[in-house]
Amino acid sequence: MINFGQKSIKIRKKTGGQIFTGLKTELKTREDLSVFYTPGIAEPCREIAKDKNLAKKLTVKKNMVAVISDGSAVLGLGNIGPEASLPVMEGKSMLFKNFADVDAIPIVLDTQDTEEIINIVKNIAPTFGGINLEDISAPRCFEIEKRLINELDIPVFHDDQHGTAMVALAALQNALKIVNKDKKNIKVIISGAGAGGIATAKLLKSWGVQNIEMIDSKGIITCKRQDINNFKKEFCSCKQGSLNDAIEDTDVFIGLSKKDLLSEEMVKKMAKDPIIFAMANPDPEILPDRAKKAGAKIVATGRSDFPNQINNVLIFPGFFRGLLDAGITKITTEMKLSASKALASLIKNPTEEEIIPYALHPDASKVVADSVKQFK
Amino acid sequence: MINFGQKSIKIRKKTGGQIFTGLKTELKTREDLSVFYTPGIAEPCREIAKDKNLAKKLTVKKNMVAVISDGSAVLGLGNIGPEASLPVMEGKSMLFKNFADVDAIPIVLDTQDTEEIINIVKNIAPTFGGINLEDISAPRCFEIEKRLINELDIPVFHDDQHGTAMVALAALQNALKIVNKDKKNIKVIISGAGAGGIATAKLLKSWGVQNIEMIDSKGIITCKRQDINNFKKEFCSCKQGSLNDAIEDTDVFIGLSKKDLLSEEMVKKMAKDPIIFAMANPDPEILPDRAKKAGAKIVATGRSDFPNQINNVLIFPGFFRGLLDAGITKITTEMKLSASKALASLIKNPTEEEIIPYALHPDASKVVADSVKQFK
Repeated sequence: MINFGQKSIKIRKKTGGQIFTGLKTELKTREDLSVFYTPGIAEPCREIAKDKNLAKKLTVKKNMVAVISDGSAVLGLGNIGPEASLPVMEGKSMLFKNFADVDAIPIVLDTQDTEEIINIVKNIAPTFGGINLEDISAPRCFEIEKRLINELDIPVFHDDQHGTAMVALAALQNALKIVNKDKKNIKVIISGAGAGGIATAKLLKSWGVQNIEMIDSKGIITCKRQDINNFKKEFCSCKQGSLNDAIEDTDVFIGLSKKDLLSEEMVKKMAKDPIIFAMANPDPEILPDRAKKAGAKIVATGRSDFPNQINNVLIFPGFFRGLLDAGITKITTEMKLSASKALASLIKNPTEEEIIPYALHPDASKVVADSVKQFK
Repeated sequence: MINFGQKSIKIRKKTGGQIFTGLKTELKTREDLSVFYTPGIAEPCREIAKDKNLAKKLTVKKNMVAVISDGSAVLGLGNIGPEASLPVMEGKSMLFKNFADVDAIPIVLDTQDTEEIINIVKNIAPTFGGINLEDISAPRCFEIEKRLINELDIPVFHDDQHGTAMVALAALQNALKIVNKDKKNIKVIISGAGAGGIATAKLLKSWGVQNIEMIDSKGIITCKRQDINNFKKEFCSCKQGSLNDAIEDTDVFIGLSKKDLLSEEMVKKMAKDPIIFAMANPDPEILPDRAKKAGAKIVATGRSDFPNQINNVLIFPGFFRGLLDAGITKITTEMKLSASKALASLIKNPTEEEIIPYALHPDASKVVADSVKQFK
């Protein structure tokens, strides 16, 4: 088997970063220089000085997104700081380009102070057509995103929250078709109350799921607990207890928590035809074969080596493509629901082994972008 | 004649920005995704977490420079703000790429507060291998650059200051050869005490010019004046008066001020074989034909339609190429002098019409880069 990590290092030792900048037009003659630098450059400057909205038409702002992180919650690695998070932000930028022709630039920040991050992003925003927040730890990520959405006139999107939620919802839509259950009647447990867990709970609720229980490392989230932040409060249950207590008669388990949290015994206590999204990375809450053995009907994970990979790349490139093309400045819940539905619809006949398109599906980006553009 | 401004607008209406991002490696298969995103990406992250200097080898930091402006002093246009300055920063980024394969990214800032700019640049710096400050008004630009140089471990360069100074010095070296004068004995007047003027005065002094007088909009800079900031103080003269008083017996006039400031009568009062660098843009302090008629021996301007164009593009791309390749973290005066000399040396036999290579000279970037690399 290929050692992906070693290969990644080996290639980077040769190339350095994985993205580069290029020129859209040649710069070879004196005339080129006069058009693209002085004196010609002054003309677009003057036009934009008169109407700064023209920057969205005449400059990189039209198609450039900043992938911003403080390196505080990097996939499976934790708080590794800005420099060490740079490869991930580059990887994300590659995906933006590859799947949706969005020019994305990694920007990693040497601060983890909420107010400072908000201030920095606000002040560099004139350059960009959109902001993709990445790998910023909860609960700071909620405040940062909310404030930036309010204060900027370009779309702001925290992918760990909404990308995850939207792909999970797309998968759930197809899974429910297979087991023939109605969203209004199902009981969903979400294990993990970080950025992804809370956003998924919110989006499922907006979609129409009425019975959602959240579990964090200390058990079921109830309002009786003193340690519940405002973001978790929305999903307080009346019931106290552990995952083992909550799992009884549950239709859907969504894990964004950690390895091996869900046992075969727990799966056996679930309602008929259990749906399990064990999305902890790289090691899921339960391995698919064990879940199946215990009676799970449908299993999805975050991994590419099992069927049904819940991968954000199915959403974020196309979602931004649509936002940029349509000139949308604020992302709404309706747009997220629409993109989720569009993604789900790519699977015409869902089966237990295929509830979501595979990560490299050639049409995912386009259908997602189109579903967003209608909100223009 | 081509209307460069209209052509610039026309092309931008089609393309938007003039730079894009590209992928250094293909991203087509599941394996590619596993190498360049999860799970392979974790390996370079872990390595950099152990030693953050590795970011300069394994990430975009190796070759990426931020072209940063607050839009407060944009070429000939003044304080037009961040969005309107974006085309210039893109143009600069194009030149970086075109002449020295540096991946440069424009970042325009929505603040003109000195402390805030310093803080923002410090905090986004982990992403970049170098910082090119651009079109930030004096005297704020001096403080911003100085503080960032002290506080960052990557090179920080304000091109309006040092790029201008270095190209002017290169041209001067060749001009003095033609008129057969010694730097120690010449009298130089610098008209304009903004970023470019002060940096040029400093660099000429470091090179060995002993008699420099500066003139700003209120006349000769003397310590008797109450309105002299600390940056100008270094060049206080004993003499009071106007440009007309100062010009007598001057060997070299360097203008970074404004249109038509230097009259034919003034040129006639200069020492034998006057050297005139009339670099105000787009309209020089005196037009070359008028200067020549009045007795000027050598005339240079900032324009491409006259001989001897003093153009920063001859320095900044190659200078950063050298800094990045050599892993230099602090720029010294010696490096600037060395690059200036290297650029001048490209002209084997200087003539009145050729004291500096033309802007698109194919070797400028390389000789400048090589001259910097030796300081590794």
